[in-house]
Amino acid sequence: MDIKGYQFSAIEAAIKKPGRKDLALIFSEVPATASAVFTRNAVKAAPVLLSMEHIKGGKAQALVVNSGNANACTGEAGMAVARETSRLVAEGLGISDEAVQVCSTGVIGVQMPAARIKAAIPALIEGLSSGTLDDIAQAIMTTDTFPKMEARSATAGGISYSVAGIAKGAGMIMPNMATMLSFIISDAAVEQPLLDKAFRRAVGTSFNAITVDGDMSTNDTCLIMANAMAGNPPITAGTPEAEVFEQLLCEVLLSLAKQIVKDGEGATKFVEIRITGARTDADAKLAALSIANSSLVKTAFFGQDANWGRIFAAVGYSGAEVDQNRLSLNFDDVCMAKNGVFAGDNAEQRGTEILRQKEFTVTVDLGLGSGTATVYTSDLSHEYVSINADYRS
Amino acid sequence: MDIKGYQFSAIEAAIKKPGRKDLALIFSEVPATASAVFTRNAVKAAPVLLSMEHIKGGKAQALVVNSGNANACTGEAGMAVARETSRLVAEGLGISDEAVQVCSTGVIGVQMPAARIKAAIPALIEGLSSGTLDDIAQAIMTTDTFPKMEARSATAGGISYSVAGIAKGAGMIMPNMATMLSFIISDAAVEQPLLDKAFRRAVGTSFNAITVDGDMSTNDTCLIMANAMAGNPPITAGTPEAEVFEQLLCEVLLSLAKQIVKDGEGATKFVEIRITGARTDADAKLAALSIANSSLVKTAFFGQDANWGRIFAAVGYSGAEVDQNRLSLNFDDVCMAKNGVFAGDNAEQRGTEILRQKEFTVTVDLGLGSGTATVYTSDLSHEYVSINADYRS
Repeated sequence: MDIKGYQFSAIEAAIKKPGRKDLALIFSEVPATASAVFTRNAVKAAPVLLSMEHIKGGKAQALVVNSGNANACTGEAGMAVARETSRLVAEGLGISDEAVQVCSTGVIGVQMPAARIKAAIPALIEGLSSGTLDDIAQAIMTTDTFPKMEARSATAGGISYSVAGIAKGAGMIMPNMATMLSFIISDAAVEQPLLDKAFRRAVGTSFNAITVDGDMSTNDTCLIMANAMAGNPPITAGTPEAEVFEQLLCEVLLSLAKQIVKDGEGATKFVEIRITGARTDADAKLAALSIANSSLVKTAFFGQDANWGRIFAAVGYSGAEVDQNRLSLNFDDVCMAKNGVFAGDNAEQRGTEILRQKEFTVTVDLGLGSGTATVYTSDLSHEYVSINADYRS
Repeated sequence: MDIKGYQFSAIEAAIKKPGRKDLALIFSEVPATASAVFTRNAVKAAPVLLSMEHIKGGKAQALVVNSGNANACTGEAGMAVARETSRLVAEGLGISDEAVQVCSTGVIGVQMPAARIKAAIPALIEGLSSGTLDDIAQAIMTTDTFPKMEARSATAGGISYSVAGIAKGAGMIMPNMATMLSFIISDAAVEQPLLDKAFRRAVGTSFNAITVDGDMSTNDTCLIMANAMAGNPPITAGTPEAEVFEQLLCEVLLSLAKQIVKDGEGATKFVEIRITGARTDADAKLAALSIANSSLVKTAFFGQDANWGRIFAAVGYSGAEVDQNRLSLNFDDVCMAKNGVFAGDNAEQRGTEILRQKEFTVTVDLGLGSGTATVYTSDLSHEYVSINADYRS
């Protein structure tokens, strides 16, 4: 994958503790068209507040990101560190403050080690000559067990361009934020309004369709930059090229989103929840999320227990319109229940076999209309409890 | 505790498996004034649907309840078993069908062993001569580790009367249903409209203020019967006696609700979540429930980790109006954060000491108004996962 005009750097700033790279920089050699989606949590980290200001013009040229500290619930002092980081990076790169996006991930409520970050920035910028996107994917990991990357290429006007993305996730994953952190870079030339719309739509069917534990972070940010260095004629809305570009975005984002679920804290299962036959798409999404966030359903998945009644119970309290006599349920292609009651025969045994797989699909038809939704989730395991009980120690 | 005019029976019907009493009966020697609150889940068990019909007249004389099978998602066949059970109990007791309340708890989606239940009813009725309320509290347990009972006495018009209650809970506990199952009996004479209002208010501050895992059952029922056998002049609305009666109800229900949380599946902590300073009481409840249902917060409680940022994050996505710079947080009397930021000094160490206790209070002030709410919850432990992964096996 060759993406033109980007440089990368990741170094150790010992933000939480020494021993790993925890400060990273993505730099576009020219100003890039950009868009970003941020957490809807009313409690927003300082870097989120700053980046929301900076992205207003639809442009960005650099992204500085740290792991080990979320810089959230840190008040004025936290805001000052985010601003100072942005200023120093901008100065070192010879670009404007507003061209810098700042992101943080890690523990909430602890002040940032401002002096260590400040001291590390010159080396961070110097490292741009030798880094790779893979280095950034590694540096942003917290409880992730593997780095998450995806890339695709296409052509526009006979010129080849690429879209590549990285992400981190694991816990605190829930729709209506971007994700924990995901950064997408492209060398395509794309008009900003199209980039913005296509990006938001792609986020809707990927990062906003996954849930690990129903929690929503203070820091979630999903950012895209497209720097036009591929040299293609700018992609504009309403053209076949725009469709191809959006399709590419969707593929990259959905792949990253699925990787996040697969790496959900302690996850042993990857489950696709499909709702069909809802009165509306909104009802379908309510029902799908209610199943995906039910602790009782998720522990049954972990236990490989075809306890389908818990799934109907979760649909029942989802807030979606439900007629319990019209509900039906499939595990993959095995019908577990129809018209609200158990399908009988060997459904129990066959359903249990499906749940023994590492990946399967749960489909609930509400029998009321044509509303549909798909979300992706994981199970709830002993390991999830261990990771989150001991996260800070 | 002497409650006049009630008889109890519990026997083994081997509903799920042999070896324990799983079918129980409460019988009032005279028709009792009654009220009930049922699950708001759109997927309702057959006995819930039947009992909702039967309670319409505000009267009841018998309650038949089984554990081992929820008779939910069982369609017409399940409805037929519930009706037949009600009919046979009514016949055996010489009362009308409508005077019988039917409740079930246990696994969802499995047809009831109709023949075994039918065969057991004569012995169940015969057992009324020798049973106690404690027998019923034992018989309705599923994953509960201890039976839950509470009782109080007072006087009206110089005549002593009592209120006693039992409950079962453990998992699937979430506001806006009664609870899993709770049955309250009294020998007081109380006018039905007052009984109904006082009962619903008491449910609101007890069973509707607890949450274990955010799941909502298909079977939750909270029932009260008052049979007037104490001989007091009927308690009517707007009198001091009515206030005393409602106070008694609140005490009994809150005690049962707290017992349910303490016996939450795998619970090692009992946590009171208090919200103050919300714009409205409704906002306060949203914030309290968001904290109480957050897997990340609950695992931190389990890990005795004073990770207060997760609490602010949960408040932030609760849907309540929030200004992150006005949030403050206490663990018992230890201030952990003020104006949105860490309180500093030795708050971390002192907060951790609080979390090492088996019981503590988390208070969040939103700094916006005078709305308040209190909910009770437990932590999320390894044991919760084990219980629910293996429940049916």
